[in-house]
Amino acid sequence: MQTVFHLIADDPEQQRTALTIAENLTQDESVEMDDIAIVAQAEGIEPLTAGGDGSDAVESLLDAGVAVKACGNTLDLKDLAESDLVDGVETVPSGGGELTRLQSEGYAYIRP
Amino acid sequence: MQTVFHLIADDPEQQRTALTIAENLTQDESVEMDDIAIVAQAEGIEPLTAGGDGSDAVESLLDAGVAVKACGNTLDLKDLAESDLVDGVETVPSGGGELTRLQSEGYAYIRP
Amino acid sequence: MQTVFHLIADDPEQQRTALTIAENLTQDESVEMDDIAIVAQAEGIEPLTAGGDGSDAVESLLDAGVAVKACGNTLDLKDLAESDLVDGVETVPSGGGELTRLQSEGYAYIRP
Repeated sequence: MQTVFHLIADDPEQQRTALTIAENLTQDESVEMDDIAIVAQAEGIEPLTAGGDGSDAVESLLDAGVAVKACGNTLDLKDLAESDLVDGVETVPSGGGELTRLQSEGYAYIRP
Repeated sequence: MQTVFHLIADDPEQQRTALTIAENLTQDESVEMDDIAIVAQAEGIEPLTAGGDGSDAVESLLDAGVAVKACGNTLDLKDLAESDLVDGVETVPSGGGELTRLQSEGYAYIRP
Repeated sequence: MQTVFHLIADDPEQQRTALTIAENLTQDESVEMDDIAIVAQAEGIEPLTAGGDGSDAVESLLDAGVAVKACGNTLDLKDLAESDLVDGVETVPSGGGELTRLQSEGYAYIRP
């Protein structure tokens, strides 16, 4: 199965909860996961920035094979470059477009 | 592809972010969109009211061909009539019902 | 049709809105519902606890045939036992796993 998590809350605690839920999914042996992705946009981009609040959790998820994707529109708006992001994070043209694409491919959607 | 945005946050800034994400999707050339819809309920109804906070963004989205739908239960609860809404906004019996129907037709779901 | 509601907000008012939207769906005659489920995790677990804020609404939903599921990881984290939950609430290994499983079976997802 495949799941994409939408990281958009502007509250650091809520973001950390979201990342914990993603991590828990990697460890839930009752469900056979093929792919887990995170799409972050708006204030949800913070944990994807190098040294940002929650970036340690993002690094763990990348190590566990989770695909982590940053919304390009958000990067433009916040004047962030790809080099400002945690190593291994991908950039997509728009968060909404990527969430649409992944769901059309069969991904479940979870917005913590 | 088809996507429905769920507008329900009670925070005006979060609502505006949601509408911006919908607008960005209309402009993302990397994804071929057939239909984009917005279903608003609870406090998320505000931008759909004529002159309401964020109604300018709703008008732009309607102009861009986005279908904007108001939850009838919310209108009843808030004592709002269809005439209180931005021109072009449709009313549906319940937000939950419409979100179910659209996803069953293949729409992706995004809750900013 | 089938729909799962994701109960995760930490705000009691938002939780109550979520439960009202689920209740409204049970009453929307414009959409033929086969199954309605609620998956609660993190702070969204509160209404599922016996005597908790919003537990009256959860009891009504259970009476109406809605399946209500508590995230096992959340129970562990909060040191809650199944006996602390409203009668009839089920426990699942992880909220994310259950939301994935239900969507893979065709459930629509709504996160109020």
